[in-house]
Amino acid sequence: MKRIRTTEVAHHVGQRVYLQGWLQNVRRLGGVNFVLLRDGWGTIQAVTEAAVDLEPLAGVGLESVIGLTGVVVATTQTAAGLELHQPQIEVITPVTAELPLTLHKPTLVATLPVLLDQAVLANRHPIRRAIFRLAAAAMAGFRQALQARHFTEIQSPKLVASATEGGANVFRLDYFGGEAFLAQSPQFYKQIMVSVFERVYEVGPVFRAEPHDTSRHINEYVSLDVELGFIEDHFTVMELVQVLLAAIMKQMAQTAVTDLHLLDVTLPVVPQPIPHIHFREAKELVWQQHGLDGRAEPDLSPQEERWLGEWAKAEHGSDFLFVTGYPMTKRPFYTHPDPADPIYSNSFDLLFRGLELITGGQRLHRYQDYQAALTQAGLPEAAFSHYLDAFRYGMPPHGGFAIGLERLLMQLLGVSNLRLTTLFPRDQTRLAP
Amino acid sequence: MKRIRTTEVAHHVGQRVYLQGWLQNVRRLGGVNFVLLRDGWGTIQAVTEAAVDLEPLAGVGLESVIGLTGVVVATTQTAAGLELHQPQIEVITPVTAELPLTLHKPTLVATLPVLLDQAVLANRHPIRRAIFRLAAAAMAGFRQALQARHFTEIQSPKLVASATEGGANVFRLDYFGGEAFLAQSPQFYKQIMVSVFERVYEVGPVFRAEPHDTSRHINEYVSLDVELGFIEDHFTVMELVQVLLAAIMKQMAQTAVTDLHLLDVTLPVVPQPIPHIHFREAKELVWQQHGLDGRAEPDLSPQEERWLGEWAKAEHGSDFLFVTGYPMTKRPFYTHPDPADPIYSNSFDLLFRGLELITGGQRLHRYQDYQAALTQAGLPEAAFSHYLDAFRYGMPPHGGFAIGLERLLMQLLGVSNLRLTTLFPRDQTRLAP
Repeated sequence: MKRIRTTEVAHHVGQRVYLQGWLQNVRRLGGVNFVLLRDGWGTIQAVTEAAVDLEPLAGVGLESVIGLTGVVVATTQTAAGLELHQPQIEVITPVTAELPLTLHKPTLVATLPVLLDQAVLANRHPIRRAIFRLAAAAMAGFRQALQARHFTEIQSPKLVASATEGGANVFRLDYFGGEAFLAQSPQFYKQIMVSVFERVYEVGPVFRAEPHDTSRHINEYVSLDVELGFIEDHFTVMELVQVLLAAIMKQMAQTAVTDLHLLDVTLPVVPQPIPHIHFREAKELVWQQHGLDGRAEPDLSPQEERWLGEWAKAEHGSDFLFVTGYPMTKRPFYTHPDPADPIYSNSFDLLFRGLELITGGQRLHRYQDYQAALTQAGLPEAAFSHYLDAFRYGMPPHGGFAIGLERLLMQLLGVSNLRLTTLFPRDQTRLAP
Repeated sequence: MKRIRTTEVAHHVGQRVYLQGWLQNVRRLGGVNFVLLRDGWGTIQAVTEAAVDLEPLAGVGLESVIGLTGVVVATTQTAAGLELHQPQIEVITPVTAELPLTLHKPTLVATLPVLLDQAVLANRHPIRRAIFRLAAAAMAGFRQALQARHFTEIQSPKLVASATEGGANVFRLDYFGGEAFLAQSPQFYKQIMVSVFERVYEVGPVFRAEPHDTSRHINEYVSLDVELGFIEDHFTVMELVQVLLAAIMKQMAQTAVTDLHLLDVTLPVVPQPIPHIHFREAKELVWQQHGLDGRAEPDLSPQEERWLGEWAKAEHGSDFLFVTGYPMTKRPFYTHPDPADPIYSNSFDLLFRGLELITGGQRLHRYQDYQAALTQAGLPEAAFSHYLDAFRYGMPPHGGFAIGLERLLMQLLGVSNLRLTTLFPRDQTRLAP
């Protein structure tokens, strides 16, 4: 008998079907017995009054892999509106070990360390799976929207000869007797590739050796990177951010309805355009509304970001807010200044519900500007010679941005720790599972 | 005036259009002058008898970034059948440096070291771009076919606590005072994720510290990984290989016609099913046809692979051949033996034009089998405890495979060195650009 998936059961009411999956739960309630099967996509309940039907499960523990045939019956007893009657069960792989986690309850109750130590098992829980399905939907929506806009996917090297942006927080490794570093971002390569394809994107791992032990940092994460040429200024880039966020939310809405429901997530509306405020005005606003004078500071504090998020919601009804024009002093050397006021930059952060989600902007594109910027930053030109070739040999005005996948999920789901949004997080003390 | 792409010019015959891109070539032939513009997608030629039209280009070198307006005219003089008349040129970013490579000829003539040293510039050449567009098409075709089959995309960690398969060829790095390794493959994680989603895939970098300096090896490459549960045996996996290769070729045929033409590539037909031969019979065949008795050897030599490739072409008219049942001694510890003859395995290699392109097979899925396999391999169970959790807590029969993106391109294009199929290759002596 051909196996069907749990998500196909609804098409077979009245028929006998065959499913395979994991034994998520068994309940023997005297006169009636329930078996809950979970496959890669959902769960289905089988019901029987005949205790003999459950005999194959004798001595076999939860999470055993089973086959199950039964007749599909419409019911008001389950959320799905369906259950299986007259079940026949076969055990494919029996489990005898006791589970260190309870997977058969609607919520997954465990401390963070236990969840992370037991991630191999914990990730089977429907709540955990829902998060990772949203991650997959985000990547798919991102790629589709970019392909439709004639962007080309690239895969840039993660082993590099020097620290990407001259920073210190970079992992060093032995490389055939010499040394190499792990790329902190595909920044230089995606810019270089603008000179090849104009519009490029990459989805891949980035590595940060930051010794921060906070709920908002991990040391390896997934970055959704975009770079495009022939822009007007950073506002061209911001328009694309809006398009992509809308595409990501649409993909989630279309392909992950059950997951959103399980996680009790309401997707935000992505306004077109997303409201924006200049850094200088943002500081003024915070001062006027909250009495905190941070106008001399070249960056926004987490508290200021939260206040600005609240302001965007109250003033514009938006969960998103662009803050533009951050001071040049706080931006990397390749940042393009605001031609009208070069203390400020043609860059932006996107705040999502009061937390920085995306950083981006216009980059320098003239060779001489790079030479001057490196000199000013005290960085040696020789270490950047290949990168500089892209500009020496002709580069258009361009810009781009990066979305941290885990941070997007963290804010979307309202979870308290970034580690909960990635399959197998990496931090200072955690390299396994 | 709104900018259009070169690939849109055909829709505007008779109209004045605006393009942006790089100055790929200028020819001043006395009475008539030609300007070739290249944008992210193609090239277009402008023609004028008025030398004054070229004045903006005075003192400006090739690869300068320019804007170009002109009237679209049908012609038999260019391959595209189109050219621009009455050109108006503006220089957006002038180039004054001399180019170390000639980009304006149909072929890119340079030694391999020069090509690799100058990859930042060389990758702009239409021939190089065509290769990377095929790479993007391969990734897109792969993902689409898997999404349609209810596979879930994962991103597994690249920083791991121990060498993935117990091997020696692994990069080691400092990790907050301790040590970490770079993942040689997502093998363990994709298997673990079968217990979560049943069907998973990943496209990402893998790292091999192999000290081989050959034309077929690089130390970082892109792996297209697949793993799926509830299989019958390795033949279920091989069916999926066929489907995916067909999807990749179809995607290239649909989205990269110009690139295939530029590279003079004829896509292979992917027969359904792809012919297969057992390892034992393959050895017999080589012995009978070529008089080489390699029957005592547990692996195929490159020469034997080439002969088998020729045989598949002659006998089955196929560029592809599965060799199944490799001896267990040469396969990794997680390989599932052939139940009927456990000296051999339920694994396969796919030869593409006589070169190994894909390795895959059925894996062990019972916890006790893993314990026995690790003992036999002399590997300590403790080092694999998280991986083993997936089996301890219930795993179905499963299997999978990996396609090396660069190797697929190498064989498809018939290029002599794997390094030519990746944007910025990494080998023992090369970490830049």
